[in-house]
Amino acid sequence: MVELSLPSLADIQAAADRLKAVAVRTPLLESLPLSTQLEARIFIKPESLQRVGAFKFRGAYNRLSQLTAAEKDRGVVAFSSGNHAQGVAAAAEILKIKATIVMPSDAPAIKRDNTLSYGAKVVDYDRQRESREQIAATIARETGATLVSSFEDFDVICGQGTAGLELVEQGRAAGVTFDQFYCPIGGGGLISGCGTAIKALSPATEIHGVEPAGFDDVKRSLHAGKRLTNSRKTGSVCDALLSPSCGRLTFAIMQKYVDSVLTVSDDEVLRAVRYAWENLKLVVEPGGVVALAALLGGKVDVRGKTVCLLLSGGNVDAATFTRALEF
Amino acid sequence: MVELSLPSLADIQAAADRLKAVAVRTPLLESLPLSTQLEARIFIKPESLQRVGAFKFRGAYNRLSQLTAAEKDRGVVAFSSGNHAQGVAAAAEILKIKATIVMPSDAPAIKRDNTLSYGAKVVDYDRQRESREQIAATIARETGATLVSSFEDFDVICGQGTAGLELVEQGRAAGVTFDQFYCPIGGGGLISGCGTAIKALSPATEIHGVEPAGFDDVKRSLHAGKRLTNSRKTGSVCDALLSPSCGRLTFAIMQKYVDSVLTVSDDEVLRAVRYAWENLKLVVEPGGVVALAALLGGKVDVRGKTVCLLLSGGNVDAATFTRALEF
Repeated sequence: MVELSLPSLADIQAAADRLKAVAVRTPLLESLPLSTQLEARIFIKPESLQRVGAFKFRGAYNRLSQLTAAEKDRGVVAFSSGNHAQGVAAAAEILKIKATIVMPSDAPAIKRDNTLSYGAKVVDYDRQRESREQIAATIARETGATLVSSFEDFDVICGQGTAGLELVEQGRAAGVTFDQFYCPIGGGGLISGCGTAIKALSPATEIHGVEPAGFDDVKRSLHAGKRLTNSRKTGSVCDALLSPSCGRLTFAIMQKYVDSVLTVSDDEVLRAVRYAWENLKLVVEPGGVVALAALLGGKVDVRGKTVCLLLSGGNVDAATFTRALEF
Repeated sequence: MVELSLPSLADIQAAADRLKAVAVRTPLLESLPLSTQLEARIFIKPESLQRVGAFKFRGAYNRLSQLTAAEKDRGVVAFSSGNHAQGVAAAAEILKIKATIVMPSDAPAIKRDNTLSYGAKVVDYDRQRESREQIAATIARETGATLVSSFEDFDVICGQGTAGLELVEQGRAAGVTFDQFYCPIGGGGLISGCGTAIKALSPATEIHGVEPAGFDDVKRSLHAGKRLTNSRKTGSVCDALLSPSCGRLTFAIMQKYVDSVLTVSDDEVLRAVRYAWENLKLVVEPGGVVALAALLGGKVDVRGKTVCLLLSGGNVDAATFTRALEF
């Protein structure tokens, strides 16, 4: 077994330099309504305000910008339910690279449309019956394109970690050190990158992940000490968080840095989407709001703590959003 | 006729000092989708992220914090369709002052509920048949409470102006000087304060106001050189912008600083609410989004310009928001 090389703070700082001119430095927002309600000091890092409406642009651009000229010429291929798709497509557009994205046929229309708007080619697949890995691998083999994983990739993880770097810096500028950080988990790329940055700069900050109920492979994997998979492939409102399992690399990083993983139900998620709309005035997609859902759902007692919640994306269809507003 | 004393930059800076510990320094966000679409460089100042979900907290707190101890004891009274109501109620709660708010019976439920949540007493009136001015004056006379105008007040205007102060500072930090600033107009308090601050710090920046169609009293007043009123009192989706007319003070300031006033239709406003939801990932109420509506509606050519849009609030009922999502 090959020894895994884990990203360091320096790797994430190098990613931040690459991203400086193209990514949004999303603000750190202290939420008074949430702080009052939870008897804590709650800060929000809204990656919904990132380019493409999700943190995924960070990792995709950090990866694509480091391809060789020959690799850039052959293009990139990725599979994604939507946010990584948009991240890769937007990064490829900036870098003038041809991108092909393999997307599930049930991906939210907003994510598909946005991916197309950045000039990428979209290839559909059936989430239940086809293997996106196989389809993407075939495209890569036939075209020579580089396959860009949405989470199991050193440079992608470093790119996502720049959000963690920023929130520690922004917290410091506000005179704050976080007791706890809450972050969504799909394949684990975001929490791996952010966990690496946060633990390096602020070792006392606890790192907590949140998964959708029924898709808690990381919670079970960390408990078992080995990677487990989800039995279902569909059936959660959190379309962004339905990876069958995490990766070898993200698992190794999460084993090192993640203190606990919580789970939230669809109802808790939709209620949090509505809460964010009503009280934070932010548009957050279901998969992006799970950290808030965990706190509002009372999964953990944060009273007296200084907490940062990462809201990871805001790409949601009108029908789903309208449904959330009824909660 | 008494000579009017107009606020200066120093007055607004003093307000900023008073607000420092209690108001949100809302971020300045550069919008890539908007910039691409309008072939300009577009920045957003989202006062929807302000305490109480609207800029109104700024003015209310600046006013209430300067009351004498005796005045504080007797309480305050205000009339408002909702955002000033919440601003006064929230400022009064912090300063431990009793607040009575006269609100129209058709005010959005979210604004009424929030006002009550800050501990204020709400008195209803019928927008068509009753005079809110008379009701409030009676309460002030009977209780000795101080009447706090939502716009025709030196200290309220200075408080609102702190948003203008911030956006110039934040623009400078981003290496940007704005060619143009676009701002909603109801009674004119916000644009008066912001215009004063912006023109003092950045004299070349043009100041443009936006009103709902049919409620364009300021546009007509500036043209006529005297204050005119709106013929209708209801009938726009922009509940926050339906003042019958501007004030003597705000008119004098607007005459000095406002370069032009645009108008937008309900359809343009609702389309902009949807646009902000889809592309900016921000929740903005109809009256708060008029500046964006004007640009998206092609009311002005901003190509090649560096522009700041102020989105003034995000307090909107689910029914209205859902309606906007259908646009």
